Amino acid sequence: MITLTTDFGLRGPYVGEMKGAILSINPEAKLIDISHSITRHSILEGSFVMEQAVKYYPPNTVHVGVIDPGVGTGRRAIIVEGRQFLVVPDNGLATLPMRWIEARAAYEIDVKRMEGIIGRKVSSTFHGRDVFGPAGALLTLGYEPGRLGQEIDLESLNIIEVEPKRSDDTWLLRVIYIDDFGNVVLNLENYELPGEVELPDLGLKLPYLETYGQVKPGELLALPGSHGYLEIAVNQGSAADKLGLKVGDEVGVKLVQ
Amino acid sequence: MITLTTDFGLRGPYVGEMKGAILSINPEAKLIDISHSITRHSILEGSFVMEQAVKYYPPNTVHVGVIDPGVGTGRRAIIVEGRQFLVVPDNGLATLPMRWIEARAAYEIDVKRMEGIIGRKVSSTFHGRDVFGPAGALLTLGYEPGRLGQEIDLESLNIIEVEPKRSDDTWLLRVIYIDDFGNVVLNLENYELPGEVELPDLGLKLPYLETYGQVKPGELLALPGSHGYLEIAVNQGSAADKLGLKVGDEVGVKLVQ
Amino acid sequence: MITLTTDFGLRGPYVGEMKGAILSINPEAKLIDISHSITRHSILEGSFVMEQAVKYYPPNTVHVGVIDPGVGTGRRAIIVEGRQFLVVPDNGLATLPMRWIEARAAYEIDVKRMEGIIGRKVSSTFHGRDVFGPAGALLTLGYEPGRLGQEIDLESLNIIEVEPKRSDDTWLLRVIYIDDFGNVVLNLENYELPGEVELPDLGLKLPYLETYGQVKPGELLALPGSHGYLEIAVNQGSAADKLGLKVGDEVGVKLVQ
Repeated sequence: MITLTTDFGLRGPYVGEMKGAILSINPEAKLIDISHSITRHSILEGSFVMEQAVKYYPPNTVHVGVIDPGVGTGRRAIIVEGRQFLVVPDNGLATLPMRWIEARAAYEIDVKRMEGIIGRKVSSTFHGRDVFGPAGALLTLGYEPGRLGQEIDLESLNIIEVEPKRSDDTWLLRVIYIDDFGNVVLNLENYELPGEVELPDLGLKLPYLETYGQVKPGELLALPGSHGYLEIAVNQGSAADKLGLKVGDEVGVKLVQ
Repeated sequence: MITLTTDFGLRGPYVGEMKGAILSINPEAKLIDISHSITRHSILEGSFVMEQAVKYYPPNTVHVGVIDPGVGTGRRAIIVEGRQFLVVPDNGLATLPMRWIEARAAYEIDVKRMEGIIGRKVSSTFHGRDVFGPAGALLTLGYEPGRLGQEIDLESLNIIEVEPKRSDDTWLLRVIYIDDFGNVVLNLENYELPGEVELPDLGLKLPYLETYGQVKPGELLALPGSHGYLEIAVNQGSAADKLGLKVGDEVGVKLVQ
Repeated sequence: MITLTTDFGLRGPYVGEMKGAILSINPEAKLIDISHSITRHSILEGSFVMEQAVKYYPPNTVHVGVIDPGVGTGRRAIIVEGRQFLVVPDNGLATLPMRWIEARAAYEIDVKRMEGIIGRKVSSTFHGRDVFGPAGALLTLGYEPGRLGQEIDLESLNIIEVEPKRSDDTWLLRVIYIDDFGNVVLNLENYELPGEVELPDLGLKLPYLETYGQVKPGELLALPGSHGYLEIAVNQGSAADKLGLKVGDEVGVKLVQ
């Protein structure tokens, strides 16, 4: 089983080519599209979406992720091995999904070795088709990751900043995702249940509730998001539009009992 | 075989999570995406799209539909059993597809029982992943629907208003779907072939023809839609834009021999 | 294995219906979505996208393509047989993919015969579901294409103009594709590596490089595209927007050593 998360978009040939490259190596591979509509070059959004997928897939699933603004430059192509596999560029994309797979080793994919395997030159601009997809296909055939490249130190992987920061009673949180409904996901895990959520910079106090329908249509609320993070939402509306927030923005938050 | 019809959109993790939840229960399930781009919260549009799918799938297919504005409130999660299965919220979504499966029983899914099966708490906001998807997966494994919840009266299901109304020689029809080309689908089945279709409120008389190419580019026509309903279209253009119509609108229609 | 390339869009029931029609005939068919978001009625774009898929799929793959503005008129529905199969309307869509499959025969699908096979009338407006999809499904079951219609002359197929033209030292090229990133693909294959690419009509000279990151963000470059064609791009931007180009446009190009 191989999942695919990219920013290729759905109109063009990219996704189809990558799938063809995978199926040429392993025609029995089961391909699952997670998303091909990640905001272009948004490593943070891609990392969040891959994390959510990883949480719900069975052991040994291979997760191929290609949000890759540095393709063709020196950035490494890597495999992270744990209960599941990640096959991604080493640009921080692995940060969030890595936390769920009990990662025990990482490998740098040897592009020259991939050329021998796929029987053609690796292009400078499309490693999804020429490197990540084929490497994922080989893993589903039972190849040891060490056959695709050299082991590297897990500590050497590039990581993006996603830990929530705190100063006194105020959290400085980051918007890590905005879904199509405009619900805003913040990087604070749902470990405590406050009574209210205050956004001092915006002069707002929101009730912390279980579900959207507990406020009137158009009203703001905070809730424990289904992805395991604190979420700001508007019942039947877009919190992102209402608050003018986008992925990567920082928001001060107080949790009030 | 499980088909999926939702309003989750294609960018985010929702679809991938729901598929992961299904494949964790039945890794052999064959997943078919019908649409994840139903207009948000449009039960009428979702019901129409599910109807079209149901008509062309083989017996025992499980159709999971999640257009679910009432998630987390008291609305029931149901299974409708017939030649095929529907797994949907009880908010009217079943109305149109139900007519094609020779429905013989309905069941209210017991959310607590689902928690035992999936081994975690059902979230308040994402029943696609936690209830409907897993219930569909269990049906493909041969579970009797009665094991997932109590049988309920078929007559008790919530139904949306889709029957065409008539007053004298004028039908009062409803726009039940507008496709990406702007073709307007009305809730009158193609049972008779008039010579012209008059829209008195709009002061228009349209020829009733077989296919788009029979009028000039940019011109309006009526035709027997490929979905079995009366359709208003513009050759190489958008009838919805031209007439200012949207899903749910009512239109007076005279069929002229 | 059946790939699908259409302009149906992803919101509506069309894709789901076509898949249902295929799976009703061959429930074991492996369906691969190439794109359902081809620009409406753009045969050139569809032909390019199908070409890219064909290059990466294994022998005997069946490629169903439905960009079909002439549906319901007299245009032929055809099968092109080679190392792989194309099942498309005879409107030029086969032009680019045909070059990769060592085409050895073509057949006109007999619509009446298809009605016998699918057990219902073929609609006037949706041959993806009623003709092309089912014909593809039958090919995956091992049907000889001659059972679906009469053999026709390969030379009789409708072809679109895609050969690059040259006058003295200037190529007159055509934009055959613009991807979601705004990269502009021209119909000149990557057979030589110039030092610069001049666009005399636009008063521009672009460096010819290996990859996007070799110029500053926002700057134009030319490069050997990963699809095998000359490509004009902007690092982290849209060349199509910057140059005002769209699919089908002609561009004068000088290759400077």
